[in-house]
Amino acid sequence: MFRKLEEKDLAVLREIVGAERLFSHDAIHPDYTHDEMILYGKGQPEALVQIKSTEEASRILAYANQEGLPITPRGAGTGLCGGCVPLVGGIVLSTALMNRILEIDRDTMTAVVEPGVLLMELQAAASEQGLLYAPDPGEKSATIGGNVMTNAGGMRAVRYGVTRDYVRGMQVVLADGEILELGGKIAKNSSGYSLKDLLVGSEGTLGIVTRLTLKLLPSPKKMISLLIPFNRLDDALKAVPKIMQLPFVATTIEFMEKEVLDDAQEYLGKDFPNRDYPAYLIVSYSGSSTQEIETMLDQAANCAMENGALDVFLSDTEERQESIWNARGAFLEAIKNSTTEMDECDVVLNIDCVAEFIAFTRVCAERYQLRIRSFGHAGDGNLHVYVCRDQMEESAWQTALKACMDGFYRKARELGGQVSGEHGIGHAKREYLKQSIGSVQLALMKKIKAAFDPNGILNPGKVLDD
Amino acid sequence: MFRKLEEKDLAVLREIVGAERLFSHDAIHPDYTHDEMILYGKGQPEALVQIKSTEEASRILAYANQEGLPITPRGAGTGLCGGCVPLVGGIVLSTALMNRILEIDRDTMTAVVEPGVLLMELQAAASEQGLLYAPDPGEKSATIGGNVMTNAGGMRAVRYGVTRDYVRGMQVVLADGEILELGGKIAKNSSGYSLKDLLVGSEGTLGIVTRLTLKLLPSPKKMISLLIPFNRLDDALKAVPKIMQLPFVATTIEFMEKEVLDDAQEYLGKDFPNRDYPAYLIVSYSGSSTQEIETMLDQAANCAMENGALDVFLSDTEERQESIWNARGAFLEAIKNSTTEMDECDVVLNIDCVAEFIAFTRVCAERYQLRIRSFGHAGDGNLHVYVCRDQMEESAWQTALKACMDGFYRKARELGGQVSGEHGIGHAKREYLKQSIGSVQLALMKKIKAAFDPNGILNPGKVLDD
Repeated sequence: MFRKLEEKDLAVLREIVGAERLFSHDAIHPDYTHDEMILYGKGQPEALVQIKSTEEASRILAYANQEGLPITPRGAGTGLCGGCVPLVGGIVLSTALMNRILEIDRDTMTAVVEPGVLLMELQAAASEQGLLYAPDPGEKSATIGGNVMTNAGGMRAVRYGVTRDYVRGMQVVLADGEILELGGKIAKNSSGYSLKDLLVGSEGTLGIVTRLTLKLLPSPKKMISLLIPFNRLDDALKAVPKIMQLPFVATTIEFMEKEVLDDAQEYLGKDFPNRDYPAYLIVSYSGSSTQEIETMLDQAANCAMENGALDVFLSDTEERQESIWNARGAFLEAIKNSTTEMDECDVVLNIDCVAEFIAFTRVCAERYQLRIRSFGHAGDGNLHVYVCRDQMEESAWQTALKACMDGFYRKARELGGQVSGEHGIGHAKREYLKQSIGSVQLALMKKIKAAFDPNGILNPGKVLDD
Repeated sequence: MFRKLEEKDLAVLREIVGAERLFSHDAIHPDYTHDEMILYGKGQPEALVQIKSTEEASRILAYANQEGLPITPRGAGTGLCGGCVPLVGGIVLSTALMNRILEIDRDTMTAVVEPGVLLMELQAAASEQGLLYAPDPGEKSATIGGNVMTNAGGMRAVRYGVTRDYVRGMQVVLADGEILELGGKIAKNSSGYSLKDLLVGSEGTLGIVTRLTLKLLPSPKKMISLLIPFNRLDDALKAVPKIMQLPFVATTIEFMEKEVLDDAQEYLGKDFPNRDYPAYLIVSYSGSSTQEIETMLDQAANCAMENGALDVFLSDTEERQESIWNARGAFLEAIKNSTTEMDECDVVLNIDCVAEFIAFTRVCAERYQLRIRSFGHAGDGNLHVYVCRDQMEESAWQTALKACMDGFYRKARELGGQVSGEHGIGHAKREYLKQSIGSVQLALMKKIKAAFDPNGILNPGKVLDD
């Protein structure tokens, strides 16, 4: 469909970004062929350009659009659905060097940043000013641009919402090189269709984001977590809606099982405060004083005990908090480390359906003889379920994995859930998205794609089927 | 552009909704020619249908689309930009009778409602279950459908955000009668382009919403307000960013001037707790205990006193709170009542630019010899500025009003603001939207409109220029 890049194309790119930020063919590091899910890596870029400005992005896109050359945008490459994989070759456009924090504006409580700024860098910069960038996806070395393009969620979404809720303004380069300014530092907006909200979560298929204006909050003074053990995960998950109904909003409600803690212990070589029980919730509260939080903790602990908890461990020291959150942050890597290969499912369900879904994953593990691990955001109904290959033979693995994943997404649909809570679609989940949203919605999305990118040069093969 | 309705069309509509819910020509009450801003009323509907189901909406739209008949959706008609005015005649489709609260689901903390449910009805139903529907636009008799279609904001947006942030799921009928289900009770979603977010704020130009799933919160136990007087509005507005930076988020930060309080006193015949000073902020905090809120109030009061406040009045009794919020809720009607005719501007600005904008409105009042009143959401940078005609002669009024409004929107653009913070564009603000967003963004929005509604039957003449 797309022609191959020629020397003349490379010459144009070289003229735009300079020789030191252009790489071609074999000179491109193999990392650029995949993201964090190695099994979704299926592309070989013909060129890699590392842009440093909006103007460079604009010139490159104008040229690519005119010549019909595919552009695959890439941040830190920490995605989990193959969203930054150059499926059809062409140009990988990296925004990693556009990594300046342009402004932390205390008066409007906003940050203005380039897309290549890492989540951890933004969080630190806000914190230095006594402010909080509230979204907290697990992968702190992801770029903010990537977070916005997948509408990333994270640990604190129960209280603070997802990345979308923090995007106030956006500079975006369209497929033809035109530069749009959407929103700004303003707190609300009812001025025409929200193109900004359409772009959030569009995974680089509608435009290249070159600047972001993000909402900050005053930093809460303190966060304290409860580690709450249960006899069965089912009991833990059934306590979640009860905790949610307390008259104050938890910051995080995560669930985990002993097996995943064991994996994390193995991986990190550090022990979790408690690993004696089959299942746990971590419930955190934040506020402006310890006293305020203590009232919440008391009520949450009582509520948990009335709903099947076996005990409640308070993590009020920095050391204990760190121990819990370091382990939680390492789950993905720990599971990855425990197996030869794995695939992931990131469905989002009504919070009162999570227990039923997890029970179903157990049935699947049995049926397909697969080792399955899960953890996730119980307070959002967003699960991360990992199917582990271990020593399974290739063709048996492919067959079992396919059947298992098909089952997961069918079950999610039955329960009124959606394909992805926060990782996006990339190319890995396209078929499931298609099944889930149906033909009318898919056709509308394709018309929107065509309105933004008539030549289909932006991230081909992603989100919508090609 | 559109043909006139004929008897055969009325026959089809009658067959769909029955004779008792179809009105034509002179049988249509004159209210259906305008919204709350009488001066934007410029349309005469040929038919009014009051739908009661999604299926009726679907059948009517399929027919109208096939025949090329314009549809103007309408909720309670409480808009302020002429959004529900049938500019080109045709069919007014009222959702006012689709007013059932289908479910308040405590476990997922959601409400499922039909679009004609009134804001006050939803708030009451949630409250009965100990839950909060957080958005709180001033007009409590607006429909939820209308709130969603304008992305309404309201008093509590500082803390809780706007209507968009509470829309989890949506059933929508497209122009051709197809029915889409978007989202659901799920708390987050990264599954393809967010059509839901594109529809929020689209003012009935992309589809007819027939069901909404809305997020609820646990009810905070208590809200307490501070009434804070200042010598000058400028001082009050400059204190706002300081209050915003305190380590806890206010629920509301409203500003008002003595003149507007006098209008409200005149209109309501009830006195405000204090009217001795030129300008005021109302700052409210909510929480799960009085103690928790008192800590916030103390710090907020100190902060205000350090930043130019003359005094701080605590409104901790229900009576005082009511007196303040009743007055605040009556501002629009009070100003309307004080003049023969008026026009409104609903710009949203960076919160540190509000003082400059208000100063500019004073210059305009002087320059064009117009009486101008303003109040609004200081914590969101969203102002409501009213230009009052009083006894001005028609042509002088038209000239002065136009020059004044042009000036307002030009100034807002210069300051990085947007045309509407929460009232929308309707047909009244189309020209200003066009100037504000520029030709590339406008063209994109028009392509999106064409993707949803190729025959242009949905709310013609609204939002985008025709």
